[in-house]
Amino acid sequence: MNLRIPGPIPVPDDILEEMSRPMINHRGPEFKEVLYRVTDGLKQVFETEGDVYILTTSGTGAMEAAIVNTLSPGDRVLCASAGAFGERFGLIASTYGADVTDLTFPLAGGVDPDAIRDALKSGPDIKAVLVVHNETSTGVTNPLQEIAGVVKGEFDRLLLVDGISSVCSLPLSTDAWGCDVVATASQKGWMLPPGLAFISFSERAWQAHADAAMPRYYLDVSMYKRYLEMGQPPYTPSVSVMFALDLALEKILNEGMGSVFERHAEAGAATRSGVKKLGLTLFADEVVASNTVTAVNVPDGVDGTRLLGLMREEHGVVLAGGQQSLSGKIFRIGHMGYTTSEDIDGALAALAEVLPKVSFAPSRVGVTG
Amino acid sequence: MNLRIPGPIPVPDDILEEMSRPMINHRGPEFKEVLYRVTDGLKQVFETEGDVYILTTSGTGAMEAAIVNTLSPGDRVLCASAGAFGERFGLIASTYGADVTDLTFPLAGGVDPDAIRDALKSGPDIKAVLVVHNETSTGVTNPLQEIAGVVKGEFDRLLLVDGISSVCSLPLSTDAWGCDVVATASQKGWMLPPGLAFISFSERAWQAHADAAMPRYYLDVSMYKRYLEMGQPPYTPSVSVMFALDLALEKILNEGMGSVFERHAEAGAATRSGVKKLGLTLFADEVVASNTVTAVNVPDGVDGTRLLGLMREEHGVVLAGGQQSLSGKIFRIGHMGYTTSEDIDGALAALAEVLPKVSFAPSRVGVTG
Repeated sequence: MNLRIPGPIPVPDDILEEMSRPMINHRGPEFKEVLYRVTDGLKQVFETEGDVYILTTSGTGAMEAAIVNTLSPGDRVLCASAGAFGERFGLIASTYGADVTDLTFPLAGGVDPDAIRDALKSGPDIKAVLVVHNETSTGVTNPLQEIAGVVKGEFDRLLLVDGISSVCSLPLSTDAWGCDVVATASQKGWMLPPGLAFISFSERAWQAHADAAMPRYYLDVSMYKRYLEMGQPPYTPSVSVMFALDLALEKILNEGMGSVFERHAEAGAATRSGVKKLGLTLFADEVVASNTVTAVNVPDGVDGTRLLGLMREEHGVVLAGGQQSLSGKIFRIGHMGYTTSEDIDGALAALAEVLPKVSFAPSRVGVTG
Repeated sequence: MNLRIPGPIPVPDDILEEMSRPMINHRGPEFKEVLYRVTDGLKQVFETEGDVYILTTSGTGAMEAAIVNTLSPGDRVLCASAGAFGERFGLIASTYGADVTDLTFPLAGGVDPDAIRDALKSGPDIKAVLVVHNETSTGVTNPLQEIAGVVKGEFDRLLLVDGISSVCSLPLSTDAWGCDVVATASQKGWMLPPGLAFISFSERAWQAHADAAMPRYYLDVSMYKRYLEMGQPPYTPSVSVMFALDLALEKILNEGMGSVFERHAEAGAATRSGVKKLGLTLFADEVVASNTVTAVNVPDGVDGTRLLGLMREEHGVVLAGGQQSLSGKIFRIGHMGYTTSEDIDGALAALAEVLPKVSFAPSRVGVTG
């Protein structure tokens, strides 16, 4: 099976084996060592000297933690979004009573920092900005460094980042860029099964936490902070994924983040180039196209569901469809984590065989893009 | 290593192996089959024809889900507690703005249904009762069937149950007893690693949900209900523990719940008897002593930390200490999930060797209790 969705991702065999290790006491000395080691490794990947905590949730749980730990009902929040996960970020905030202004952008082009500047200029009482670094639903990487330059550099507002499908795959420098909270999850670039989420928390986020009145218990980072000082998690965590994380971080840090980012850039470029050679078109504007997931337009007259069904059944290649308004209009090819050129070539070769079966008659086959 | 704590528990090798299975698409047909099959199996174990949902959280996340999905800020809630987890249940409710009345009981004796009757008589506006079935912190099993008889049978109030260390180990008949929400977690009687929690939801709980105004997003059961109809989880779940759950349920249901309960009753009786033969005394009143975890008094003059340290270092037997007010006063021996008589005998034999090293001079060694 060639699992080419934007998470869960294929997990290397040696990391999968760690998942079968026998259980240990999550409040004992052996776990304490693992917890301290992986927390240190996570900080290196996040490029932060601030705090990083490990939650047993999906990425959505970590997005919720970012909000409820820093905000109060009634707080004015700007949600800059261009896709399903951007929308979700704002929805979580409004669910907890924040006064959310949605600043939406064309899905293919992503978030524009200039529009955020304008919104902050005219909204001096906006306390926080929510933004998704890499929008998994559209295959667009938003220009987070420029966005942070505006939000922090020019206006010094709280910056909460959904980095779920970016951290550990795309460059993201938490401290240098000024991200106050960054949320991510294990089943993405980390080369791990799902089950854990990671969240960074800056000094400025702690200041906001002191006044943050949204209710929280399981997701309250102050409990994670208190217990981490004792070398323990506050609640029983996904011990197996912790074991796997320990090995994954060792491999990632030994490889070096520069190489990890380069691998993802190559996978993204190879996927985009191959897709275009098949006569298909990319959904995202190429200048903002993501190196962790590629969104491809379903050609006119082609049944996207049938296309994905044939890819899976006849070639063992699992792709993802579009979400919400993009359902049936795009399909997505994941290439985060450990993706080889064989994985990508295999998926593209299968596409080449399946496309004629779904009545695709390219007008531009063979044209280099 | 003989892991004798009240979770995580030792996981049988064949179930551990399932944890290493390659990832699949959590929105694909293969996962859908697993999701429907395990949901059906969970309902059999819970003894419910109502709903059961699978959360990627610890047990505490499921306790929070029980509360935020059924209550509103200002709702009057009775929290009947006799230990750390009972306290936690009430604390979560008050964190979200419920008006909580704490009805506390002596730790060794547990919750008394008559006192709940008195409290409900004098509190006609109490909407819900929170109770822990098996108090992991004290080794006491509260009389849930009698409690439910009062709460539901006599007063028809909402009954929210922490069944974390009881479901799948001790008899609990969700529908027949009238439990509206029961929360439990994978690392207990289910013979699984931690990483998933399970929550039952009755028709009456859904009625409460319609008016429940506490904020929730990741834990909102209505999303789990909507997605389950499509054969999907709303958010990326711990796929590996789902694979393991699939096998664990097959084993448990093949064995039969009667045999599972009998195994736990035998493990509890053997542990209590063995502990007393060593001249130690039980913390819990024996009539309410739990069959999933045994709390033992640390004898006068004995350093409990040193006792547990020697057990671990010299014999590879991992026991749990006391929590909160019981820290240093008790230690706990877990026997939930798949516990053999060799596991218990081994732990008791190690205790017999270690006790003299921590200056324990029993006054009653050899006296049968």
